[in-house]
Amino acid sequence: MQLTMKTKLTELLHRKVPILAWLPKYNVNAAVSDVLAGITVGLTLIPQAIAYASLAGLNPKYGLYSSIFGGVMYIFLGTTKQLSVGPTSIMALLCLTYTHDTSLEMVAFLTFLTGLVQLTCGLLSLGFVVEFVSLPVVSGFTSSTAIIMASSQLKYFLGIQFKPKNFLDMYVQLFKNIGKTKYSDLSLGVACVVLLLFMKRLQDIKLTDKEPPGVKIKYLKSFLWFISTGRNAFILMGCAIITYVLKNTHEKVPFALVGNIESGFPSLAFPPTHININGTDLGLLDMVSHLNTGIFLVPLVGLVANVAIAKAFSEGKIVDASQEMIALGMGNLAGSFINAMPVASSFSRSAVNNASGVQTTLGGLYTSIIVLLSLSLLTPYLQYIPQASLAAVLVCAVLTLVEIEIMAVLWKTNKRNFLTLVVTFAACLLIGIEIGLLCGICLDIFNLLHFNARPNVHFDKKVTDMGFEFWLFEPSGGLLFPTVDYLREVVLSKIYEDNNKNKMLHRTRAAGDVYIIINCSHIDKTDYTAAKGVVSLAQDLLHKKCQLVVINAIKSVQAAFVSADQNAYIHVYSTYQDFVSAIHKDFYDVRNSIDTLSELHHHDKVDHETIF
Amino acid sequence: MQLTMKTKLTELLHRKVPILAWLPKYNVNAAVSDVLAGITVGLTLIPQAIAYASLAGLNPKYGLYSSIFGGVMYIFLGTTKQLSVGPTSIMALLCLTYTHDTSLEMVAFLTFLTGLVQLTCGLLSLGFVVEFVSLPVVSGFTSSTAIIMASSQLKYFLGIQFKPKNFLDMYVQLFKNIGKTKYSDLSLGVACVVLLLFMKRLQDIKLTDKEPPGVKIKYLKSFLWFISTGRNAFILMGCAIITYVLKNTHEKVPFALVGNIESGFPSLAFPPTHININGTDLGLLDMVSHLNTGIFLVPLVGLVANVAIAKAFSEGKIVDASQEMIALGMGNLAGSFINAMPVASSFSRSAVNNASGVQTTLGGLYTSIIVLLSLSLLTPYLQYIPQASLAAVLVCAVLTLVEIEIMAVLWKTNKRNFLTLVVTFAACLLIGIEIGLLCGICLDIFNLLHFNARPNVHFDKKVTDMGFEFWLFEPSGGLLFPTVDYLREVVLSKIYEDNNKNKMLHRTRAAGDVYIIINCSHIDKTDYTAAKGVVSLAQDLLHKKCQLVVINAIKSVQAAFVSADQNAYIHVYSTYQDFVSAIHKDFYDVRNSIDTLSELHHHDKVDHETIF
Repeated sequence: MQLTMKTKLTELLHRKVPILAWLPKYNVNAAVSDVLAGITVGLTLIPQAIAYASLAGLNPKYGLYSSIFGGVMYIFLGTTKQLSVGPTSIMALLCLTYTHDTSLEMVAFLTFLTGLVQLTCGLLSLGFVVEFVSLPVVSGFTSSTAIIMASSQLKYFLGIQFKPKNFLDMYVQLFKNIGKTKYSDLSLGVACVVLLLFMKRLQDIKLTDKEPPGVKIKYLKSFLWFISTGRNAFILMGCAIITYVLKNTHEKVPFALVGNIESGFPSLAFPPTHININGTDLGLLDMVSHLNTGIFLVPLVGLVANVAIAKAFSEGKIVDASQEMIALGMGNLAGSFINAMPVASSFSRSAVNNASGVQTTLGGLYTSIIVLLSLSLLTPYLQYIPQASLAAVLVCAVLTLVEIEIMAVLWKTNKRNFLTLVVTFAACLLIGIEIGLLCGICLDIFNLLHFNARPNVHFDKKVTDMGFEFWLFEPSGGLLFPTVDYLREVVLSKIYEDNNKNKMLHRTRAAGDVYIIINCSHIDKTDYTAAKGVVSLAQDLLHKKCQLVVINAIKSVQAAFVSADQNAYIHVYSTYQDFVSAIHKDFYDVRNSIDTLSELHHHDKVDHETIF
Repeated sequence: MQLTMKTKLTELLHRKVPILAWLPKYNVNAAVSDVLAGITVGLTLIPQAIAYASLAGLNPKYGLYSSIFGGVMYIFLGTTKQLSVGPTSIMALLCLTYTHDTSLEMVAFLTFLTGLVQLTCGLLSLGFVVEFVSLPVVSGFTSSTAIIMASSQLKYFLGIQFKPKNFLDMYVQLFKNIGKTKYSDLSLGVACVVLLLFMKRLQDIKLTDKEPPGVKIKYLKSFLWFISTGRNAFILMGCAIITYVLKNTHEKVPFALVGNIESGFPSLAFPPTHININGTDLGLLDMVSHLNTGIFLVPLVGLVANVAIAKAFSEGKIVDASQEMIALGMGNLAGSFINAMPVASSFSRSAVNNASGVQTTLGGLYTSIIVLLSLSLLTPYLQYIPQASLAAVLVCAVLTLVEIEIMAVLWKTNKRNFLTLVVTFAACLLIGIEIGLLCGICLDIFNLLHFNARPNVHFDKKVTDMGFEFWLFEPSGGLLFPTVDYLREVVLSKIYEDNNKNKMLHRTRAAGDVYIIINCSHIDKTDYTAAKGVVSLAQDLLHKKCQLVVINAIKSVQAAFVSADQNAYIHVYSTYQDFVSAIHKDFYDVRNSIDTLSELHHHDKVDHETIF
C-alpha cells in the first residue's frame, strides 16, 4: 500500500518535473548528441531571433534576449525533447499587435502576463482549452498571419519606409511610395530569395539510385543537408561580409542595414508596474486594459503552437497540455525579467532539433549558450546585415505556412469547417489577427452548441410478442439542457403526424394507452433542465393518452429523472425485457381478475341454481 | 403537386401569421369568452402596470402606455392564446438597470432596440438560442431578481427616501435612515401585505366535501376566486378611496402618494436618434454603447419568459420560439413609438387569462381597450394610491418567484447544476442581474463544452471465431474537434497499460499486428479536425504495431475520414462482419499461398524423386 503511494508520488513528480525522470539515466552518448543538436539549433535561432524582433518592432538584441530563458526552463519542465522554445513569427506578430505605439516596458509586461496566465492555467489543469481550437481555425489564422508578415516585409525589399495602420493600408501606402524604390535593395532581396529557395531544395536532390549509397555519397548528402538547414545563417553571414567589405572599400553601402546592436548581456529587472507613453502615465490596471484580449490570446496561441508541435513529435505519447502550459509559463515569466518578448515553440527549429538527433531537452542549454556567446561576440558584426536579406529570410520562412490544399479538402467534405476557415482567414486579414482568431473560436463553439442542440433521434415502431404496439425513440449522445426541447419536439411531432394519418385513413386507435419508449442506452449524462423537460414531455403525452417509458438508463440518469418527477409521470424500467414483462404481467393480472370475477359469478349462479 | 405546394404555403402563412388560422373559425361563443377574459386581465394589468413603471423609475402612465401595443401585436402574431404581453417585473428591473440616470428617451430607445433584435433574430429563426438558458440559470436569475425588487420596495414601507447605488448599498442606507421611519406608511404597508396574503388564500378554501357541490357553493367559489384574483386591484382601489376621503376631510394625508398621473393618450413619435443627458449630447452609437449588453440581454430575457410561459400553457403543442420572438419584437417596436418600456409575457396575468377561459389571442384587444379607458377616465383617481400599498402589491407579487426547493433537489442530484444556480444567484445579487445572467449562461456553456470534450468511450477486448484478438472502442455521441484528443488519449493509454502489464507478466505479444477497432455506430457527425485526429491516432498506432480499423461509420463520417487520410492509415469496413471476413480471408489467402508453395515444393520433390 505504501509502495503504491510512493510510486504514485514519484509518477506525479516525474510528470510535473520531467527532468527528474530522465536525468538519472543520462549518459555520454546522449550528452554528445544534445551538444551537437543544441549548437545546430542555436545557429538557426540567431538569424530568426533577429528577424522576429524586427518583425515585432524591437531592436534585434531583444530577439536574442528572448531566446535564453524559454529553452532553459523547458529543460526542467518540458515534456518533448525536440521542442525549441524561443521567439516565433506568430508570437512576434501578436506582440506587435498588442504593444505597437507603446514602449519596451509594455512588451516585458505582456511577456510577464502571458507567463502568469499560462502558469496559472497550467497549475489549474486547464490545458484542455487547447482542444477547443480546431484545425480550420488554426489554419486560417496561420495562413493569414503568414501573409500579413510577408506583406510587412515588402517595404524592406523595395528599400522604402512608411508606417502602415493596418493590412490594407500597407498596400495602399506601398503603391503610393512605389516610385521611391531603391533598386540596390530590391536586387539584393530578390537574389537572396532565389538563393534561399535553391538552398532549400538542396537536401531533396536524389544523388544516387544505389541502395545502400556509398560512403562518399552519404557525406555529400549530409553536407547538402547542412547547407540547406543553415541557409538562413549562411545567407545573412554572406550578405554581412559583402556589406562589411563594401563599407571598408567604398565608404558608403548601397543597402539599408539593420543598424547598431548593443552587445553585452541583458540586465535583470522586475517587470514594470506602471509606464509612461507619450507623456501619459499608465498604472497597472491601465496597462492590463491596454493589452485587452491579448492577455488571453497570446498565452493561448503560444500553447496551441507548443501542443501542436509536441504532438507532431510525440510518436503517439500523450502530450500533457497543462504541463506544456507550465513549462511555457515559467519560460515567459523568467523572460519578462530580462525584457524578452513572449516565446513559444518554433516548428522549423524543432524540426532541425529532431533531424540533428537531440536526445533530451538539455539540448536547449547549448542553444542558449550559443545565443549568449553571440550576444558578446557577434553583435559588432550583426549590424552589417542588410534589411533586404533579413526580409528575404523572413518571407521565405513564413510563406511555407500558407496552406491552400486544406481549403479544397474542406470545401469538398465539410462546408461548415470551410466557412470557419474562410471567416477566420478573412477576419484576421481585414480586421485584425486577434479578432479573427476570436471569430473562428466563437464560430466553432456556436457550431458545436448547435450540433448539441440537434442530436440524432432514431425512431422505430415495435410490437411485442403479445401484440402490444409501442414507439421507440433512441437519442444519440448526452441528454443535456439544449437537447431536450428538440427531443420533445421530435416525439410530439411524430405522434401528431401519426394521429393525422390515422384520421385521414379513417382508422381509430385501439382503446388503451400507447407506450412511448425512450431508450437511454446512449445517454451517459443528463442535467436538471433536461430531466424536467422529459417530465413535461410525459405530461404532454398524457393529454394524448400516451405513457412515457424510459429504459436502459444508467443510475445517475435514472436518479435525475426520479428527482425531477414528483408526480411519477415517467415509468422507469431497467431493460426493454423488464418493460415487456411488466406490461404482459399487467395484462394477465387484469385478465385473471376478470376471470376470477366471472368465476365468482358462475359460482353464484350455481349456488342459486342449487338453492332453487 | 400544386396542391401540396399550396398546402405548404398556407401552412407557412398560418405559422407566421397565426391569426389567419383561427379567425375564419371565430364565433360568438369564443368572442364572449374573449371579452370577459380580456376585461379581467385588464383589471389585473392596470395596478401591475403602475407598480412596474415605478419599479423602473418611470411615471406610472408609461406603465399603462406599455400595456397597449404588446397585446395588440400578439393578437396577429402570437401563438399561445393565454399569453398576456405587457410590462413585467423582470423587464422593469432590467429596464431600470440599463437606463437609470438617463432619460425617458433612452427607455424608448431600449424598447426599440429590443424589438429590433427580437424581430431580426425571429426572422433569422434564431429562436433556438433560448434552449441555451437552462432551468438553474433561470431559477437563480428569477429568485435574485425577486429579492432585489422586494428589497427595493422596503423604503416605501418605511416611508423614507434615498437613492441606493446597488443591492448591498440599499441595505446600508436603509439601516442608516431607519430612524426616519414614518409609522403611518409602515402600518398601512403591513396591513396591505396581511390582507393580500389572506385574499390570496381565499380561492383555496374548501367549502364543501359534497361532490358535486351545490349551485350556491359554486357561485360562492366563483366569488372567492374573483376576490382573490382581483386582490391587487381591490387593495389599491380601497386604499385610494381611503386617501381620497382623508384628503377631503382632513386636508393632509398621512401617507406618501404615487402622485399626479397625466391623463390622455400617448402621442406617436419616432424613437430618438440622439439624446442629451446632463448636458452631454449622445449620438446613436453612444446610446448603443451605453446600453451595452442590454441590447442582447433584454430581448433574450423577454423571449425566455415568453417561451417558458407559452410552454406551460401549450398542452404539448410545440412552441415556436422564433415566432414568439417575432410577435414580441413587433410589440416592442410598436411600443417604442409611444415611449413604452420593453414588454414580455407575465405569468400571473397569463394564469388569470387562462382561468378566465380565454379562447383566442383576441382577448388582448379588450385588455388594451380597458387600459386605454383607464388612461382617459381613471388617471385623476390613480394619484391617490399610497406608495406603501403599491409596494405591498409588488412585494407580494414578486416574492412568490423566489424558489427554494429547487436548490435542495439540485444539491442532491446534480452538483454542477447546483453550482450554476448558486453562482447565477450570487452574481445577480452582488454584481448585477445582467452580469449574473451572463455568468450563469457562460458556466452552462463551459460545462456543456467540457462534457463534449469527455465522452464515454466503452472498451472491450474481443476474439474472433478463428482466434484473432482485437480491441473494440465505442465512443458515445458525435466525434467533433474537442473530443478527438480525448479518444486518442483513451486508446493510447489502454494500449500502454496493456503493454506494461504484458511486460510485467513476462509475456510477449504474439507476432503480427493487433487490430484496434473503433465502432462508429453512435457517431452521427464529425469534422475535419476530428478526422485528422483519428488519422494521427492511426499513425501513432502503427509505431506500436497496431492497425486502426473503423466500422459502422455512416457515409458522411466515412467520407471525412477518407478525405483526411491521404496515406490510407485507417482501414474502413462497413460492418463488424465485413472486417472479420476480411481478416479471415487474408489469413486464408496467406495460408493458401503457403500451401500452394509447399505443394509446389512437394511436386518438385516428387519430380526429383521420379527423375532420380
